[in-house]
Amino acid sequence: MSIANNTATILVSEVGPRDGLQSIRQTMPTAGKLRWITALHDAGVREIEVGSFVPASLLPQMADVTQVVAHALTLPGLHVAALAPNLRGAQAAFAAGVHKLTVPVSVTQAHSMANVRKTHDQVFADLAAIMQLRQSLYPHISVEAGLSVAFGCTLQGAVSDDETMRIAERAAESGVDEIGLSDTSGYAEPRQVRRLFTKLQAAFGKKAGGAHFHNTRGQGLANVVAALDVGVTTFDASQGGIGGCPYAPGASGNIVTEDLVFMLEAMGLHTGIDIERLIEARKWLKESLKGEPLYGMVASAGLPKGFRYANQQSSRQV
Amino acid sequence: MSIANNTATILVSEVGPRDGLQSIRQTMPTAGKLRWITALHDAGVREIEVGSFVPASLLPQMADVTQVVAHALTLPGLHVAALAPNLRGAQAAFAAGVHKLTVPVSVTQAHSMANVRKTHDQVFADLAAIMQLRQSLYPHISVEAGLSVAFGCTLQGAVSDDETMRIAERAAESGVDEIGLSDTSGYAEPRQVRRLFTKLQAAFGKKAGGAHFHNTRGQGLANVVAALDVGVTTFDASQGGIGGCPYAPGASGNIVTEDLVFMLEAMGLHTGIDIERLIEARKWLKESLKGEPLYGMVASAGLPKGFRYANQQSSRQV
Repeated sequence: MSIANNTATILVSEVGPRDGLQSIRQTMPTAGKLRWITALHDAGVREIEVGSFVPASLLPQMADVTQVVAHALTLPGLHVAALAPNLRGAQAAFAAGVHKLTVPVSVTQAHSMANVRKTHDQVFADLAAIMQLRQSLYPHISVEAGLSVAFGCTLQGAVSDDETMRIAERAAESGVDEIGLSDTSGYAEPRQVRRLFTKLQAAFGKKAGGAHFHNTRGQGLANVVAALDVGVTTFDASQGGIGGCPYAPGASGNIVTEDLVFMLEAMGLHTGIDIERLIEARKWLKESLKGEPLYGMVASAGLPKGFRYANQQSSRQV
Repeated sequence: MSIANNTATILVSEVGPRDGLQSIRQTMPTAGKLRWITALHDAGVREIEVGSFVPASLLPQMADVTQVVAHALTLPGLHVAALAPNLRGAQAAFAAGVHKLTVPVSVTQAHSMANVRKTHDQVFADLAAIMQLRQSLYPHISVEAGLSVAFGCTLQGAVSDDETMRIAERAAESGVDEIGLSDTSGYAEPRQVRRLFTKLQAAFGKKAGGAHFHNTRGQGLANVVAALDVGVTTFDASQGGIGGCPYAPGASGNIVTEDLVFMLEAMGLHTGIDIERLIEARKWLKESLKGEPLYGMVASAGLPKGFRYANQQSSRQV
């Protein structure tokens, strides 16, 4: 991602309002979403995927997405992202003024059929139409192909590097600005993460995007360490670890933003996020989603005694 | 550790019966401990730290340690480890016939005083006496110095590499066979882990021991990945993530054995442990420690579709 312009800066992209909220039964009231997004922004989060442009009949949790985008656009310096699975959704997202659109592309045909009821050919026909629309009317909006089940699939099982790279190739041909890899259901392991991002970068250079890991089997931050090793600088995460994929049985929870930011800052990698204010922002989740379990260890353990943020570590070195 | 004699084999040392059980209020009945340890052995676990040799007045949870050791010694191929904080405890552990004794040595004076009420000089005088006893009567039993708060301390705050290395040096001079590093309270971050184990190995060669990480801030497996990178081959973990340190406020939970073994096997690193049988062994914890929270993601998510153990991956490569 362009925002991370040196190796000591990492972009943490908060996807809770999209991936988190669309994966739970409750619908967060619009006012709750706006307060939560504001609190995330106050904590220093600089990219938020605020919703999905999908029919309200399919995902009532996302019915207010246009309103949520409008609010997010008022927050200074916030990079406002959204997801759309098809041309109609992309059109609405572009019209709403998002800065970035992510289009999900399943690496396996089985997941594609389950998730969007489309074959790969149909998905890429859609993506071509989306890119055409972007070129003609919205050249300033960036589009990412988010490759779902890039590391393994609950329906197909193992996914080979070649399968993922073939889909990445087709996505690149469509002209997207960025190709990200998603471990939709917690199949990724660190060696695979290093290998696959290395291949992605070799093939697509600056178009090689970020990592979207789930913590289904507790491996989320371990995979982040592996991805950092090979130069990945953008990581999706969701506050309180809410989220998952309703069409991938057993999938649960994005990696926890609080724990991710803590790890990055402890490693000397600057995120711009204040961890204590981030932890405070959990209250809006608790308040607006009564009874929904929240995950994460840093929120209960707190910061270690004598903790220094990355920028404090640098100043100490001077 | 000697057991891990090639880079594709990792020794997972189960410390739940010691670190886990001594850190919770309930006392697991002896029969429960024996069943649990048997079940762990049945799953393929080959090293278990079965208890602490400490006065029952201080840790009633460990009052039956001699009986537990005797049982563990009947399990074929099991490496039976125990912990003792002083000469009296070491004497009892040696007499009980453990294969390995771990002596905790706090890197900070503050933690040492809080944990064993001894200065560093007193701790090392004790360690010298333990090593003398070992040399004269129990030359076949190995002794490890387990360096507590090696990455940070809830009482002191940050711990420098130099502080840890100085204590490691004193431990090495005492003649211990191995020096392990413990992140007692979840302060470690991956870069520090790589740096410190690299220094430990450079200074002490084969005496550089394993890693004992807690998951206090969710960083446990991330730190394992970092340690694997620099050649660490022994990892402590506790089933269900039970454990912590009663004298380090806020410390909670060892890394979860089930999640660790899953990650290692998925990475192609052989542990010899059957994950499904390991998950089954949790039932003895649930049964004997009513109401105690158990952690870990793999136990609820299960193995991924098409999962292959490390040795199955190798056979596929042939």
